[in-house]
Amino acid sequence: MKKIRAAIVGYGNIGKYVLEALQAAPDFEIAGIVRRDANNVPDELREYPVVEGIENLQDVAVAILCTPTRKVEDFAIKALSLGINTVDSFDIHTQIADLRSRLDAIAKKHNSVSITAAGWDPGSDSIVRALMEACAPKGITYTNFGPGMSMGHTVAVKAVEGVKAALSMTIPLGTGIHRRMVYIELKDGYKFEEVAKAIKNDAYFINDETHVMQVEDVNALLDMGHGVHMTRKGVSGTTQNQLFEFNMKINNPALTAQNLVGVARASLLQQPGCYTMIEIPVIDMLYGDRETLIKHLV
Amino acid sequence: MKKIRAAIVGYGNIGKYVLEALQAAPDFEIAGIVRRDANNVPDELREYPVVEGIENLQDVAVAILCTPTRKVEDFAIKALSLGINTVDSFDIHTQIADLRSRLDAIAKKHNSVSITAAGWDPGSDSIVRALMEACAPKGITYTNFGPGMSMGHTVAVKAVEGVKAALSMTIPLGTGIHRRMVYIELKDGYKFEEVAKAIKNDAYFINDETHVMQVEDVNALLDMGHGVHMTRKGVSGTTQNQLFEFNMKINNPALTAQNLVGVARASLLQQPGCYTMIEIPVIDMLYGDRETLIKHLV
Repeated sequence: MKKIRAAIVGYGNIGKYVLEALQAAPDFEIAGIVRRDANNVPDELREYPVVEGIENLQDVAVAILCTPTRKVEDFAIKALSLGINTVDSFDIHTQIADLRSRLDAIAKKHNSVSITAAGWDPGSDSIVRALMEACAPKGITYTNFGPGMSMGHTVAVKAVEGVKAALSMTIPLGTGIHRRMVYIELKDGYKFEEVAKAIKNDAYFINDETHVMQVEDVNALLDMGHGVHMTRKGVSGTTQNQLFEFNMKINNPALTAQNLVGVARASLLQQPGCYTMIEIPVIDMLYGDRETLIKHLV
Repeated sequence: MKKIRAAIVGYGNIGKYVLEALQAAPDFEIAGIVRRDANNVPDELREYPVVEGIENLQDVAVAILCTPTRKVEDFAIKALSLGINTVDSFDIHTQIADLRSRLDAIAKKHNSVSITAAGWDPGSDSIVRALMEACAPKGITYTNFGPGMSMGHTVAVKAVEGVKAALSMTIPLGTGIHRRMVYIELKDGYKFEEVAKAIKNDAYFINDETHVMQVEDVNALLDMGHGVHMTRKGVSGTTQNQLFEFNMKINNPALTAQNLVGVARASLLQQPGCYTMIEIPVIDMLYGDRETLIKHLV
């Protein structure tokens, strides 16, 4: 079997889990890792090429972008232009459709495939949301997140003056309403009351019930677990009160990484262009003989 | 907007709900209904052509097959050979892959598209099962059905000598194990104990915990509600204990019908051939502008 040669672009938290998911996948081989500093090679990467640009790796079929979300587009453009497929977990919901349009043009021009926003939300949750809407076209879907750490909110807290370290937890209150539990270490010379007030007035928090607490050591609170509780009550045809529910309790970066590896596999089966996960057949994400998968899963 | 002209083939329980779902869908128009007896025209069909063969309807883009499962193949072959797409809710899990292969050859030959096994299980549940496996490739999925009426088991009970009317309810006990609650009306001259024993020894029941009860009026117990509780505990990459759960409580024929209408829409976007639901993008089932759907759902 010819294996799929994948590059990991960016080696932070997600990149590490992508390495594990690629090693666990029978049909992938790791072409190498792209890092800002190619001399920074931890033990687990010693057997792979570590380079500073994807053009320095051989025969890459697909680049798995594990960079910060705001850098996804630049790295995607570069790889797609080289004819290399890309997958990413870009997660700013309001910007996905536009990013997809821009990458679509580039991918088509260079005969490559991009699958974007392919983490878990946006990502696998999007498939569940779309499926629930297909099952009951009229109705309301609520996506409730947590309990779990919100990366975006944590970064927002860290940017507030006087904050030394921070953790923002998302607590689901139902119907898509969330409480924010914010844990901070305070810098010397700042007053907790004032910093807490600044956090609560930040755009990320001002519309949510937010509690700020001072702790000695934020690091002692960190856990990568996260959760989703999604519900839809709607109408199939003209029949009311159709009820759907999806729940998960997962290690956040591990699921993101697994989904990225799945869509990396799927990218090889699509026509040139850029896609979100609801635009590709779910079977394309799976390893194995198609006939066997259909027998096993349908 | 040019509407999709759909035919309803078979006008039993599912057919009636398909009619409602088509009437509720903004992008469909009903080309007509195919029945064994075209003179049997209930009020709600008076505005549509009712015919005995699909060849008697004009400009049909897709035929929604609402016949008994065992008649699906014959009707599909006929329509596909005329260049008409077909969708069906064929539900014998062990025969789906082979049926798909046979219809695939016919559809490709006649430049048409078939989407098979597209009810809710097999059907929309299959997409959830495939997605859970994509999210955590190692692990175990349990699909628990009910509480709700099992059509297949009810038919099996009705075939037992001495049974005048029957209802078999499926009760989920967890980990894919089910209890069968069987309600029967007895024919004159038969002993309940003997008929109950025959039911419990039937191939449909011999491996499950089965309780048989005699009632005065089976019809008074009938309810079209059904449920699913699906769980997967598995491994994403090398990270254990990833937990996924899908639940629904639904009107059974209404969901089957809605899914059939969704895949009828999707059939127009696929290349010639036969597909199961895990092989088509979920977005293709949805009505509306693609860009708007992506903004709303991803």
